[in-house]
Amino acid sequence: MATLSISELNCLVTRALECSGATPTAAGAAARALVSAEAQGLGSHGVSRVPQYATFLGNGRSNRDAVPEIVRSKGGSCLIDAHSGMAYEACAMAINTVIARAGEFGIGCVGVTNSNHFGAAAVHLEPLGQAGLVGLAFSNSPAAMPAWGGKTPLFGTNPIAAVFPRRDKAPLVIDLALSEAARGKIMLAAKEGKPIPLGWALNKAGQPTTDARAALEGSMLPVGGVKGAMLALTVELLACALTGAAFGFEADSFFVDTGNQPRLGQLFLAIDPGTLAGSDTYFSRTERLIDMMLEDEGVRIPGERRRDLANAAVRNGITIADALHVQILRLAGEGAAV
Amino acid sequence: MATLSISELNCLVTRALECSGATPTAAGAAARALVSAEAQGLGSHGVSRVPQYATFLGNGRSNRDAVPEIVRSKGGSCLIDAHSGMAYEACAMAINTVIARAGEFGIGCVGVTNSNHFGAAAVHLEPLGQAGLVGLAFSNSPAAMPAWGGKTPLFGTNPIAAVFPRRDKAPLVIDLALSEAARGKIMLAAKEGKPIPLGWALNKAGQPTTDARAALEGSMLPVGGVKGAMLALTVELLACALTGAAFGFEADSFFVDTGNQPRLGQLFLAIDPGTLAGSDTYFSRTERLIDMMLEDEGVRIPGERRRDLANAAVRNGITIADALHVQILRLAGEGAAV
Repeated sequence: MATLSISELNCLVTRALECSGATPTAAGAAARALVSAEAQGLGSHGVSRVPQYATFLGNGRSNRDAVPEIVRSKGGSCLIDAHSGMAYEACAMAINTVIARAGEFGIGCVGVTNSNHFGAAAVHLEPLGQAGLVGLAFSNSPAAMPAWGGKTPLFGTNPIAAVFPRRDKAPLVIDLALSEAARGKIMLAAKEGKPIPLGWALNKAGQPTTDARAALEGSMLPVGGVKGAMLALTVELLACALTGAAFGFEADSFFVDTGNQPRLGQLFLAIDPGTLAGSDTYFSRTERLIDMMLEDEGVRIPGERRRDLANAAVRNGITIADALHVQILRLAGEGAAV
Repeated sequence: MATLSISELNCLVTRALECSGATPTAAGAAARALVSAEAQGLGSHGVSRVPQYATFLGNGRSNRDAVPEIVRSKGGSCLIDAHSGMAYEACAMAINTVIARAGEFGIGCVGVTNSNHFGAAAVHLEPLGQAGLVGLAFSNSPAAMPAWGGKTPLFGTNPIAAVFPRRDKAPLVIDLALSEAARGKIMLAAKEGKPIPLGWALNKAGQPTTDARAALEGSMLPVGGVKGAMLALTVELLACALTGAAFGFEADSFFVDTGNQPRLGQLFLAIDPGTLAGSDTYFSRTERLIDMMLEDEGVRIPGERRRDLANAAVRNGITIADALHVQILRLAGEGAAV
């Protein structure tokens, strides 16, 4: 295992992505988001993605030269074209823009089209929480789940994230994908030859299965049945129909190296509590709800674990597996340094 | 059974609510929403609510003299105080306002505070779909579900609704509550002495139960476990913390006549597709997704059944039970007419 400070890991990941062909600003934005997710304990959306992103920059699934661009703008709303680069620079631009719009109009809505894998949804919303704004994020992803009643994967697992600022405390953070189970859990069961619970997945023929390998060839099921399927449909329409991006069924999987430019879509909303009930009321109402939640033994406030891990990472650095460290060092042209 | 035309039922319900003390505009707005829900086959949120609303107007749980008022406004965002009247006039004002704001700023966000039972969430969004806008609605409701890991009801079943306009077709409509099962199903099982599936509810002690009667004294469980609980928390914060309304645990149940003014909150969002990818792109993308959904046998487009029933009601009228009809007639001062 190798332990690096946050800034060391940031620099290393930035160099690795630059050496893989990304522009300096695209590499920097991706590094910040991946290292932030890693620091929060979200390993599957952290720096383990660097080799994949490097491959995509190499084989054209991500456009190396992409410069995100505002292509439409009116009042509180705005559309950004990521031009099929990595998602992070475009999303950072979207977040800066949506914060400014919410400040001016009380509410902001910024879409990103021709985008890509955007990692942990809630990580993008951090600046909104810091700015005292309520934020929502939606993204689609390559098809993994059927429409309700169907057998063919059409929708992605389509994350929804929300951030709610608190007075003098770290924001409350909600971040969830709309599949019943994480794909990683099914992959682990397949590797260990163990069954999965009924209700997680369908096989290739569209039948419910407890066979993890059959599930990986079939489709995942939405959380909560028809309701999760309806929410996944909602996210496809918000993130793609509104932005002109590609639907989940049009985007090739991230689990293989080859494939198309996924052209995914994201939508970010920011709401200024000051323009509704007012910030004082918003903050005191929020604390009232949190106090009541904590009176019930066994309830945790979402986002606190991530925050604690992130704070620990500031003090102690981030530890990653040696193999991954070496891989990233090699990508950064520092193979000899190991 | 009695069959009335939509306009006959509208007039009758309006009179019944006026005679119960509501202002003419409040009665008219409530009647339009209840009759619209009834026409769409949503009986539990239709005219069966009229006697309850009359009781609440009589005992003060709804304020008879309330006149909804815009209390804060900036750019695309706005807060309306329902002053504890019935919810519908305030919600209709919110919808008119959010349509205007989305037209001007691309995105609109209107909250309603000190509100009440607002019926079927998606019914409010109909004018948005007709105006070519994408709409989202959130409301809380009296506490029915615990926070994740808790045992005490804190959150309502908290509906989420969305409307997506289509070119030359009725909008796609999504409308769901965040409980695993509808309370009505548990009430029916209790009445019939049948067990309920594990995962629907907890008993009063916070333990999972299959006893429907114990479930009614305990709490309902969120759809999809922790994810549904996180979405219910999100809705409480969007609909109440932002608007200054009361949380689910502060509002007395609608299943009893006596209790406080619930002071619930609602939040409506409207997005103009024209200011993001543009209406042409939005419409053609939406049809592409719907075409793909329909290729998979067994998939239905949400909202179509409601629309078909509403169209049939225009032709054939609406049939309601005699007992309910008599009840509403009596409230309207027409008891002698039966």
